[in-house]
Amino acid sequence: MLVAAPYTKNQLDSLAAAVELVWLDELTEAELDGVLPDIDCLFVQFWPKALDARRLSRMARLAFIQSGLAGVNHIPFAHIPSHVTVSSNAGGYSDEVGEFAWGLLLAGAKKITRFSRTTTENTSKSPLELAKGVVVLRGRTLGVLGYGGIGASVARIGLAFGMKVKALTREGRTKVEGSEGDIEYLSGPSGLQTILRDSDAIVLALPLTKETKGMVGAEELELMKKDAVLVNVARGEIVDQRAVYERLVRNPNFVYATDVWWTKDGKEEYPPALPFLDLTNFIGTPHVSGPSAVGTGGPLRNSVENILRFVDGKPLRGVVRREEYT
Amino acid sequence: MLVAAPYTKNQLDSLAAAVELVWLDELTEAELDGVLPDIDCLFVQFWPKALDARRLSRMARLAFIQSGLAGVNHIPFAHIPSHVTVSSNAGGYSDEVGEFAWGLLLAGAKKITRFSRTTTENTSKSPLELAKGVVVLRGRTLGVLGYGGIGASVARIGLAFGMKVKALTREGRTKVEGSEGDIEYLSGPSGLQTILRDSDAIVLALPLTKETKGMVGAEELELMKKDAVLVNVARGEIVDQRAVYERLVRNPNFVYATDVWWTKDGKEEYPPALPFLDLTNFIGTPHVSGPSAVGTGGPLRNSVENILRFVDGKPLRGVVRREEYT
Repeated sequence: MLVAAPYTKNQLDSLAAAVELVWLDELTEAELDGVLPDIDCLFVQFWPKALDARRLSRMARLAFIQSGLAGVNHIPFAHIPSHVTVSSNAGGYSDEVGEFAWGLLLAGAKKITRFSRTTTENTSKSPLELAKGVVVLRGRTLGVLGYGGIGASVARIGLAFGMKVKALTREGRTKVEGSEGDIEYLSGPSGLQTILRDSDAIVLALPLTKETKGMVGAEELELMKKDAVLVNVARGEIVDQRAVYERLVRNPNFVYATDVWWTKDGKEEYPPALPFLDLTNFIGTPHVSGPSAVGTGGPLRNSVENILRFVDGKPLRGVVRREEYT
Repeated sequence: MLVAAPYTKNQLDSLAAAVELVWLDELTEAELDGVLPDIDCLFVQFWPKALDARRLSRMARLAFIQSGLAGVNHIPFAHIPSHVTVSSNAGGYSDEVGEFAWGLLLAGAKKITRFSRTTTENTSKSPLELAKGVVVLRGRTLGVLGYGGIGASVARIGLAFGMKVKALTREGRTKVEGSEGDIEYLSGPSGLQTILRDSDAIVLALPLTKETKGMVGAEELELMKKDAVLVNVARGEIVDQRAVYERLVRNPNFVYATDVWWTKDGKEEYPPALPFLDLTNFIGTPHVSGPSAVGTGGPLRNSVENILRFVDGKPLRGVVRREEYT
């Protein structure tokens, strides 16, 4: 197995006991070329430049790629043969990213960043007037777009806040009664429209695919409530940058709170191209939601478990439908 | 009944059907003096100056005071005969203040206000480095000081985040198993010390009484974890201003997030005397948590229900133990 993920040998102990590990960082270019034909499994974090199309074409035995990240949009599917199975680190970051999404949601709904930012507004009005900008969540509707591990974590907390939850899933599911409220499962374009229209807060927890790229554009933003909070813990490109900027400028009570940014030359651009940081109804954090999970060991544990399933010939988790990316 | 709360006649319809209402705002000084001996019930928001010691001494029939606020520290107990029952608006604001407490807690734990405030730190370090300052809540301990309506609301949400909850109650209770985790009930000075020592986040949800004033001073702050988040949705004076300021300056990872402020001449002083607003580990909002509940009608409904209990001779809710205030 070739390791191209930022973990130490100690951290991969349990893997080393089951399979021979080769570390990309320790190989010269020539050595790398030499081992490529023998590699059956690849553990990557962000896709390494060294594994370009030429080298991939030489990995004749490659059967499985485990992504250390939950998102797999960094993987060059066009150059990977279709018989190779690719797994995302689905579930590895769910609780931590779900918690972070709630931080962004509440910072927006309760106007905490806005109130913290300036004393001018705070002293010019009475608390009763100021409080009119504070959104009470109990009894209101939470939209969750993408109902994987992160979406489910976000929804579960929404129920504890006494919210109704409407979740967009790939397949749609029948309505399931929750313990402290309902989760309604919807799917397809009409499901998306319903959620956009009905929700007081919306959390984006979808993978970035061909289908979800630009999914929240001017038209979709127009369907949302004027004082809704839109939270993005997925990928910047799911939202149209200019459309959301204009929406924020025109609607001072609408909030866009994001931990993820639009990319330029394959890297997230921060600060972003448009002057979002000047807007008091914009909240931005430097893509720390996923990384905050690293310290708990959860993402590593989840990846290693899946690689061991591959080694043992067991059914794999988080298998990516590559047709969504190519 | 004398109404000294900022509600319209329409809003008090259901009361007017049961009891004769007199509105303080509509009376001349002489008229007020004239009606005082007949008033048996008083509905106040913040205590009105007009009802001074002299006038109170003339309210011979006064039997019940309903506070529109959850806190009753504004009530001049020294001038109110001991046979008069005083009820706080306990429960009237619980869910909204509980939600707000979570907004402050997460803004602190996830460093959202700090990251939003400046791009310098965000661009000088990698997300993985920055994420080390982000506190993951799952599996950690939430301390709740004061287990009334607000405290219970805060604790319930804490369980959904997968936290262990330690709650300080007046009496102490036996340990009760929660549905998604445990709530441990503690009381007294040793209970307080345990909670301060063990908690990763602490929410103050106590009334301001003789006993709770200055309850969190230098010694108590010293017991807390260096990277704990202290949230105050109760009253400013429960925390010692200088002690918490010094704690913040000395411990850049400790967070104090508050919606309530220290008073000067009976009014909350904002901005506060010490330069808290310059500290990136301080989060302050202009006392909007309680007022954010007003729009839902909950506080009014709760007050009116209790006043109708008084009219009907039923057992009252939220009855204040006045010995805690005098």
